[in-house]
Amino acid sequence: MQNGNGSSLHNDESNLLNGGESSSGGINGVSRSGKPPKRIRRRLGSVLHQTSHHHHAPNVPVPSIESHNYEPDESEVWRSHTHSVNRSNRGQWWTTGKKRSVKRWAVTLVVGIIQGSIAYFCNMLTRSLSKIKWDHVYEALQDERTGDATTGKGYFLFLFYQTLFVSIASLMVYIEPVSAGSGIPEVKCFLNGIAIPRIVRLKTLFCKVFGVTFSVAAGLPVGKEGPMVHSGAVVASSVSQGKTSVFGYDTSFTKIEDFRNDREKRDFVACGAAAGVCSAFSAPIGGVLFALEEGASYWSTKLTWRVFFCSMMTLLTLYTWKNLDSWWGQASTEKLFSFGEFTSFDSGAVNFSIWELFLFVIIGCLGGLIGAVFNASNEQITIWRMKHVNKSQLRRFLEVLCISFLVTTVSFVMPMVWGRCTELPVDVEDWSEQEKELVEALVPFKCEKGKEYNEVASLIFTDADDAIKQLFHFREAGEDDISTFSSAALFLFFLPYISLATIVYGIAVPSGLFVPSLLSGAAFGRLCGHLLHKLDHTHGTFADSGSYALMGAAAVLGGMARMTISLTVILLEATGDMQYVLPLMLTLMAARFTGNVFNEGLYDIHIHLKRIPFMDQDVPEIAEHHEIVANQVMSADVKCIRPVERVGVLHDLLSQHGHSNFPIVDEHGTLYGTAGRNMLCTLLKHRAFKREEGEGKKGKGGGEPEMGPRRVGPLMSWKDMESVYPRYPTVADCVLEPSDRSCFVDLRPYANTAAYTINETASIQRTYRLFRTLGLRHLCVCNHNNQVVGIITRKDLLPEALLESLLRVRRTGPNLGEEIERRGGPMNIDQGTRL
Amino acid sequence: MQNGNGSSLHNDESNLLNGGESSSGGINGVSRSGKPPKRIRRRLGSVLHQTSHHHHAPNVPVPSIESHNYEPDESEVWRSHTHSVNRSNRGQWWTTGKKRSVKRWAVTLVVGIIQGSIAYFCNMLTRSLSKIKWDHVYEALQDERTGDATTGKGYFLFLFYQTLFVSIASLMVYIEPVSAGSGIPEVKCFLNGIAIPRIVRLKTLFCKVFGVTFSVAAGLPVGKEGPMVHSGAVVASSVSQGKTSVFGYDTSFTKIEDFRNDREKRDFVACGAAAGVCSAFSAPIGGVLFALEEGASYWSTKLTWRVFFCSMMTLLTLYTWKNLDSWWGQASTEKLFSFGEFTSFDSGAVNFSIWELFLFVIIGCLGGLIGAVFNASNEQITIWRMKHVNKSQLRRFLEVLCISFLVTTVSFVMPMVWGRCTELPVDVEDWSEQEKELVEALVPFKCEKGKEYNEVASLIFTDADDAIKQLFHFREAGEDDISTFSSAALFLFFLPYISLATIVYGIAVPSGLFVPSLLSGAAFGRLCGHLLHKLDHTHGTFADSGSYALMGAAAVLGGMARMTISLTVILLEATGDMQYVLPLMLTLMAARFTGNVFNEGLYDIHIHLKRIPFMDQDVPEIAEHHEIVANQVMSADVKCIRPVERVGVLHDLLSQHGHSNFPIVDEHGTLYGTAGRNMLCTLLKHRAFKREEGEGKKGKGGGEPEMGPRRVGPLMSWKDMESVYPRYPTVADCVLEPSDRSCFVDLRPYANTAAYTINETASIQRTYRLFRTLGLRHLCVCNHNNQVVGIITRKDLLPEALLESLLRVRRTGPNLGEEIERRGGPMNIDQGTRL
Repeated sequence: MQNGNGSSLHNDESNLLNGGESSSGGINGVSRSGKPPKRIRRRLGSVLHQTSHHHHAPNVPVPSIESHNYEPDESEVWRSHTHSVNRSNRGQWWTTGKKRSVKRWAVTLVVGIIQGSIAYFCNMLTRSLSKIKWDHVYEALQDERTGDATTGKGYFLFLFYQTLFVSIASLMVYIEPVSAGSGIPEVKCFLNGIAIPRIVRLKTLFCKVFGVTFSVAAGLPVGKEGPMVHSGAVVASSVSQGKTSVFGYDTSFTKIEDFRNDREKRDFVACGAAAGVCSAFSAPIGGVLFALEEGASYWSTKLTWRVFFCSMMTLLTLYTWKNLDSWWGQASTEKLFSFGEFTSFDSGAVNFSIWELFLFVIIGCLGGLIGAVFNASNEQITIWRMKHVNKSQLRRFLEVLCISFLVTTVSFVMPMVWGRCTELPVDVEDWSEQEKELVEALVPFKCEKGKEYNEVASLIFTDADDAIKQLFHFREAGEDDISTFSSAALFLFFLPYISLATIVYGIAVPSGLFVPSLLSGAAFGRLCGHLLHKLDHTHGTFADSGSYALMGAAAVLGGMARMTISLTVILLEATGDMQYVLPLMLTLMAARFTGNVFNEGLYDIHIHLKRIPFMDQDVPEIAEHHEIVANQVMSADVKCIRPVERVGVLHDLLSQHGHSNFPIVDEHGTLYGTAGRNMLCTLLKHRAFKREEGEGKKGKGGGEPEMGPRRVGPLMSWKDMESVYPRYPTVADCVLEPSDRSCFVDLRPYANTAAYTINETASIQRTYRLFRTLGLRHLCVCNHNNQVVGIITRKDLLPEALLESLLRVRRTGPNLGEEIERRGGPMNIDQGTRL
Repeated sequence: MQNGNGSSLHNDESNLLNGGESSSGGINGVSRSGKPPKRIRRRLGSVLHQTSHHHHAPNVPVPSIESHNYEPDESEVWRSHTHSVNRSNRGQWWTTGKKRSVKRWAVTLVVGIIQGSIAYFCNMLTRSLSKIKWDHVYEALQDERTGDATTGKGYFLFLFYQTLFVSIASLMVYIEPVSAGSGIPEVKCFLNGIAIPRIVRLKTLFCKVFGVTFSVAAGLPVGKEGPMVHSGAVVASSVSQGKTSVFGYDTSFTKIEDFRNDREKRDFVACGAAAGVCSAFSAPIGGVLFALEEGASYWSTKLTWRVFFCSMMTLLTLYTWKNLDSWWGQASTEKLFSFGEFTSFDSGAVNFSIWELFLFVIIGCLGGLIGAVFNASNEQITIWRMKHVNKSQLRRFLEVLCISFLVTTVSFVMPMVWGRCTELPVDVEDWSEQEKELVEALVPFKCEKGKEYNEVASLIFTDADDAIKQLFHFREAGEDDISTFSSAALFLFFLPYISLATIVYGIAVPSGLFVPSLLSGAAFGRLCGHLLHKLDHTHGTFADSGSYALMGAAAVLGGMARMTISLTVILLEATGDMQYVLPLMLTLMAARFTGNVFNEGLYDIHIHLKRIPFMDQDVPEIAEHHEIVANQVMSADVKCIRPVERVGVLHDLLSQHGHSNFPIVDEHGTLYGTAGRNMLCTLLKHRAFKREEGEGKKGKGGGEPEMGPRRVGPLMSWKDMESVYPRYPTVADCVLEPSDRSCFVDLRPYANTAAYTINETASIQRTYRLFRTLGLRHLCVCNHNNQVVGIITRKDLLPEALLESLLRVRRTGPNLGEEIERRGGPMNIDQGTRL
């Protein structure tokens, strides 16, 4: 799988991004060599000349991240296959369609159950590991305090556990490099229609889940929510495909040939992603929305219900695991992830006044700012990391160790800096169960256990979920202005924590970003609440600090992720209290708008840093302000083939060009159909070509094939061609004898005759909408006579490519108009109206 | 506006549907005469021959419900307009785009505020009217009881108020017939891309809001939630268009030319619908989802945020109105629509056990059955009503009076049938504020006030919202098996109420369906709960009856409406308690699946009864089981025009055919572009044609226009043509002198050169997806040489049309294959693979 013939430029670049591994492994076993030259947005100007992928030297196959193929190629063999399926179903009640439908729901059910179980056990394991660690450390600390142990024992014990756990997490990333990070960008890309190699393999699942368990247990400022989403996607893909490779071995545990195509796979991955969100946040509706927002290019009622069902089954599984002991009793509300119960202090009234909504909006803006700074810092660190660290696996591992050491030390030093012992809050009569539990969770650190606690240590040393709950739910203790966490402690926690989180995201461990953002945001929000309360000593004007903490958490998360409606719903479901709908929505909106002034969401930043051709839902801004037409953005260097083509020509074309699709044109250049690379390779590999026709005419006319109505039947069926999905043969698998090269392949039965086309005069808005909405892989650009003048792929429609096209057109000036005039004749677009 | 020349068949049919008014009024003033002949689904077989709209006699313009035009026609004049706009913005900071964007948000804000206010005042008015009515009636009843008044005074007073209010409501429908009913089907159709005449007019808004206020106050089993959604849509449309006609007068209160196109209008209506849902149910997220699910054919981040913002502003307005008195204090949680607060009896545990989820699923199935029966009955009643009642406005009014009398009598008789007085529940110590309020709302009817109440009367005579809350929140009163509502009372309420609701939906008053479904469902659910509790006397096994009531409400509503995820979210937001996520989702899913076995959702039934060409999100089932290609469903009778066409030919074409689009083809039949009807009429009306060119050649060659490169500049600008949106001139406005008829119009600058096309061999799945996803209005079907062979419109892709095509193809047999062969040449689809 080593990339032998990629240009050195590509190799260098992919090395930077890929953690030093120069083999990219291909899409599900199909060997592809590297990634396309996509630049970083911010550096657009300087690299423009490197990126025009239309002008590569010949004889160099252009590698590319593949797009998914959501629509079947409508060829004669496909139609024949469909026909035979329909015929076999005629008059039957239990049709193939019904069978497949039942199987589909069954697989969805299994996905939900497996993902729910994975999430539950991952959570349990993290808690156990964490508990072992803390128990030992606390014991050592108490010994230090009473003098039973030498000073420093606690720290070194702490350091030992942290380093051990982090090393295991990093080992997982060593085994499977794509399991690093959050996984949400990867799932977004998958649902966007981009097949990133190895992203939905079972090996990735194992490394991700096991790795994140340990990285969370190690006390790094990471969450396990993002990886859970990734996990759900892999589970869905694996179960639905029924065949997957574990550590290089092929395992076939089910045979569900029905779902082995990109469309079904995408739908299942959408279900899985929803299950992942649901299992991470106990937010089934948020999960459905996440999947639909990212994945389904348009609402399909059927898919919505399937995603819905998958979410429900995940939640049901979680509930069932939780309540195994109390199956017949009342179920527990305790979820894997929850913000706890917000108590109303006045019955029938919400915890805030209407005018405070303006304060929440301000907190939203501040959160947006914090998020923007976070994103910008992390982007710079990631760029630096790509250049200097990701070159070798060893460096990445050492980086993890260094950062783990840093985190450990800071975590240990901050409580010592604080160095104050606060008395545990007195057990007020009207406290709820929840508040009593939270008080028990306060950490004594070096104070007297059961009587005092260290404020900073209580935030750092507890599980992040519990720390968030503490910030949300501890009340201000009445008139005397004493509260569980003082402003100084909050500040002392907030700044180091968010700084560490900035550094940590991107190191070689599986790590999510939700929980760190929420926790630092909650600290920030509570701080704001405290400061406001300082202004007003009557304690009636402002809402309690818990509400401010919630808004702060939402603001910072919103400012970092900039997700849309699904995020709101996830937060609402985690909050579990509808009174916060309006404040949460306002805060998130303010955070998003403020953040967007400065940069994009962190996931988008990472997608762009990885140079993945991600297509936004909306037409790029540049297209709104400039008239660009399809003709100007298309790649004009199209490799066309004839309906009946020589084997040699095809083989040369396939080996020299990496294009995934070739238009088939007749003698006039009129589009007949398109031929996919996989199909061509399959035909060549299975030697589906005829000797006679070509041989007979070899002497005269340079071997021009006969184009008349005389036809031979198709030599391969659609089923034979598709049975190997997704591991289609490559051109390297096609071994040809020299005499084969002069044979002819009749491509007409295999050509996709109903390929989408667009007129060359179409505006870029129209082209983009067609391409994005239908989830296309390629789009033929034709003139009025249906002659192919170019081809548009995903990469041509990215904002950078559009800008480049615009600049090129500006340079070329009015000549392009003449060019179009020449191609399309006098009836083409008016010259005066362009540019 | 009288339809003079429609065929009698059409007129009869549209009379049945349109409440006897044979003038359909046209789309925003454009006169259209009637509706297309679309049959009722269930009667497919018998009317097949009447429906092939391709074969109408010439000289009869075929009227049609117009589709919206979401994509601008990309002609030279359009490009030139875009270019000039872009050029004027070059180098400026405050560009047109930014201005428009700010305006867009401002309009969205205004829409939210107005809709919030409308909902608030509508609600206040209903409550006041209701209170006046009940106060008088109760007083009379008390007088009867004490003997101060003759028996029957209460009834007649009751009858008087009911009849008065109902008459006012019906008067509103007399003024504006489209304001009858729920409005949700109409909004769904609008968002689906169908322009139903008068549906978004200000007059409709007034009649709908005022009418529903009175029909709810009249105590009919109707809700005001559907009409609120419609109201939001109209508000958005009116404010964004800035120009609308009130009772025939044009009022221009703002001038926002930017938004005067179908795309912007659709987006605003989506915002408005969300605001409507939000104002009706206090469910902002449910509103956003409703709009996106129905409206946006694909997710657009920008639109999502705008819809979101609009929802928020509506909610904020509602809150502000509610809390005007306590602006600085804590805001009230009391919403316009709420299920009240569900109390947890055990802290930290939900109100049900895991195994009860199976019981909830069974309740869901039963609810689905009830919904299916409801839908089927209402469908039959509606068909009968269309045939016998809707013929005249008088009959409709009399029907309303009769049904109002029936409802009044039943409402009054049922409590008398019950005839038992129950003692008010004793004020238990731990009751919440809410429960105390609910006890106060119990109705004494003919019992002693303040001590006793009539169980049935308490359900019938209170506002539906309060009745729902009573069913949800009254606890079972401990060991002695006495509860606030006995099983018999619930049954005595449930059956008459749901029967009346079935009859009432469809009469000539504005009426929603959500509240009646919820209320009868709640009664049904509580009944189920009671029966279960009878099985178990220990009172620990089953959840409280309130939870069962909630599930029952969800089940019946889900079984009736079959809405997808937006309904779940709306119910969740109304419930306000996240513990019910899983049970609600399971119940709704069970209800949907059970109901779908028998029939479709009520809104869909009404859409089909009105024969509106509504396109589902998913490809029709029939297309999945049969290979149908675009060629077989298209309308082959295409009226093509030449790039330079005679005025006379155009005028004849426009007067004889009602098509909204005409392909422009060159001498070889190759598609050059398309010309919209509106554009052609505008050109003719403004006499944008030249005399010389045609005149000079009139003698020779039969007036064939010159097709060469010599061109005259466009005679009209795009802005001039579009400024009259949406009241484009009709063919009747084009007054031609006889000498004009031989002039030539150069259509080339106005033609949409980038029209979407599809190959004739494309499968119907592909065609449907392209059409539905992009929200197209028409789609040219071309062969491989880009020659137009047919055109596909919305109507051709409906399930009925597909079945018809399939039957026609079966009849014609293999000849169709030859036909394609003839058209497309030898390289077309293989004969053997079709049918």
